[in-house]
Amino acid sequence: MTHAYDRIRAIVWRDDALELLDQRLLPDKTEYRRYVDAAAVARAITDMVVRGAPAIGITAAYGVVLAARARYGEDAGHWQSLIRADLALLAAARPTAINLMWAIQRMEVVIAHLDGEPGAKLLAEAQAIHAEDVTANRHMGELGAALLGESPGAVLTHCNTGSLATGGYGTALGVIRSGVAAGLIDRVYADETRPWLQGARLTAWELVQDGIPVTLLVDAAASYLLKQGAVRWVIVGADRIAANGDLANKIGTYNLAVSARYHGVRFMVVAPTSTIDMRIRNGGAIPIEQRSPQELLTLAGHRIAAAGAGVWNPSFDITPAELVDALVTERGVVLAPNAEKMARLLSAG
Amino acid sequence: MTHAYDRIRAIVWRDDALELLDQRLLPDKTEYRRYVDAAAVARAITDMVVRGAPAIGITAAYGVVLAARARYGEDAGHWQSLIRADLALLAAARPTAINLMWAIQRMEVVIAHLDGEPGAKLLAEAQAIHAEDVTANRHMGELGAALLGESPGAVLTHCNTGSLATGGYGTALGVIRSGVAAGLIDRVYADETRPWLQGARLTAWELVQDGIPVTLLVDAAASYLLKQGAVRWVIVGADRIAANGDLANKIGTYNLAVSARYHGVRFMVVAPTSTIDMRIRNGGAIPIEQRSPQELLTLAGHRIAAAGAGVWNPSFDITPAELVDALVTERGVVLAPNAEKMARLLSAG
Repeated sequence: MTHAYDRIRAIVWRDDALELLDQRLLPDKTEYRRYVDAAAVARAITDMVVRGAPAIGITAAYGVVLAARARYGEDAGHWQSLIRADLALLAAARPTAINLMWAIQRMEVVIAHLDGEPGAKLLAEAQAIHAEDVTANRHMGELGAALLGESPGAVLTHCNTGSLATGGYGTALGVIRSGVAAGLIDRVYADETRPWLQGARLTAWELVQDGIPVTLLVDAAASYLLKQGAVRWVIVGADRIAANGDLANKIGTYNLAVSARYHGVRFMVVAPTSTIDMRIRNGGAIPIEQRSPQELLTLAGHRIAAAGAGVWNPSFDITPAELVDALVTERGVVLAPNAEKMARLLSAG
Repeated sequence: MTHAYDRIRAIVWRDDALELLDQRLLPDKTEYRRYVDAAAVARAITDMVVRGAPAIGITAAYGVVLAARARYGEDAGHWQSLIRADLALLAAARPTAINLMWAIQRMEVVIAHLDGEPGAKLLAEAQAIHAEDVTANRHMGELGAALLGESPGAVLTHCNTGSLATGGYGTALGVIRSGVAAGLIDRVYADETRPWLQGARLTAWELVQDGIPVTLLVDAAASYLLKQGAVRWVIVGADRIAANGDLANKIGTYNLAVSARYHGVRFMVVAPTSTIDMRIRNGGAIPIEQRSPQELLTLAGHRIAAAGAGVWNPSFDITPAELVDALVTERGVVLAPNAEKMARLLSAG
């Protein structure tokens, strides 16, 4: 049986170009957009054609391939210096997810050691980043599912962390897929996740295709749901994790962490180590993207709030490590993360 | 200076008919709908042409006037028994707000003592219910504002509790108006309040007209906002309050109460005593309305979630009394409400 997560591809390299599934149109339309230059890729990331921390890292890596081809064609002798502008543009496409910078830095290492036409080697590196992400997700799925307990229960997730947000399979949604496969999850509650509605539009779409029972709720209903007692784990992804285990993730994550602790529900964060930024000591130093007020002031093109209303629209929030029961990475699980355990995780292996 | 809250009228009795401002169209359009029979009024309440616990109570009272006129015309000898069907229909229009039943019961007392043509006396009673609500709101505004402290600060509110949700001025929004007038509130944060977006569509509209600085946020951002430290009070209304002080209010209220307690922010509930249901011992027995899945599955007429996704859509949740710092009623303030204090409030005066 082919699972939907094997069929859903947010990022495809085909015929010497990058194709991105336009996630702003899902689930209404499944439309790919084709990219042949890096500036357009940077714009696609900013405009959320593609979103999800691992997915935008992979996308940026392919963007570097396109940039190298163009710059090499422009001036084969100086392309390595000319490409700096493209790398900076890609890195600045969104500020919070560190996977973006991490992927670009991996590509830079290859660039620094290149001789001659850069296409093949850079493409191989981008494809390696892509493939490693899927492998990491599969492994995290197993590690996370092993934490779920012995009997089937319900979980709550936020935003979208599935095949659409990653190279494939997913981070938090990967754990959920593995948990369902192991018979340890019998229902997935999904917050709709305003303002972009990634839960309603993307997570429900992925889970329905996999035949996994999914129930949507408005974000504000999460605490009342946890109060009912059926949910055993809240499982989310991360966009950047500081050296002490504090993390940035989609706005609303902190609210869930507070509520989970209050109700005695456990809180799991699932993210590859490419999400960890050891240069940042704690969550207070993670840059939080503020997005356009229009995301709240308009709905389907219509103005919904009176002219003159202000908007506070952070796209992410910070959850302190002390509210995290388990951090699942491809290198292993960290229970109750702190600076010491995080350093140990990254120095091991 | 005329304040907007004096101009905004959700419920108007004019030319022997009831006119309701269609709140589903705000702030785009200010359109009144005219009602001359009780069944249509019940439908308007169910369909949320008018909403807000005090407002639907007042609306139902006017609905009883229309019903009495029709039944008296039908059979002047038996109208008091014929009208029972209309009273039941109005009472069943929405299940959670007790103000609906409370208002109908007040009208029933008048009906029981009536002799001859019922129109004038019932209209006088409905208008008394309407006017008393405004008076109660003004008084609660003063009582609540007196709790705010000495220096200007920010507050967070949820849903809409203003002139649109009441006879006029508002409950929680009444306290906010009085607090602004007294120089004790310098900014109002308003949750957008999915799925109906009463915060974005209605509360922002009311506050902008009053010149009160309002900042919208997605519901899931509330905890992250409280973490910033600027908000001193969360101020909300109620749809039904049990004898021990537990309360039902718009979905998301419980989430705010949990978060306020976690962050050391105070939590105020503002509701007239008509909201208190002493026959219900605690919140567990308050009926919670489940509304249509379509409220989450569609947006502006478009389907947004994959077919096959389930929905959990309670319109209200229960906040336990132990999370309430102050309950403000027109009969006085109850700090840290419990069964004993609630009984004392209602027996006094």
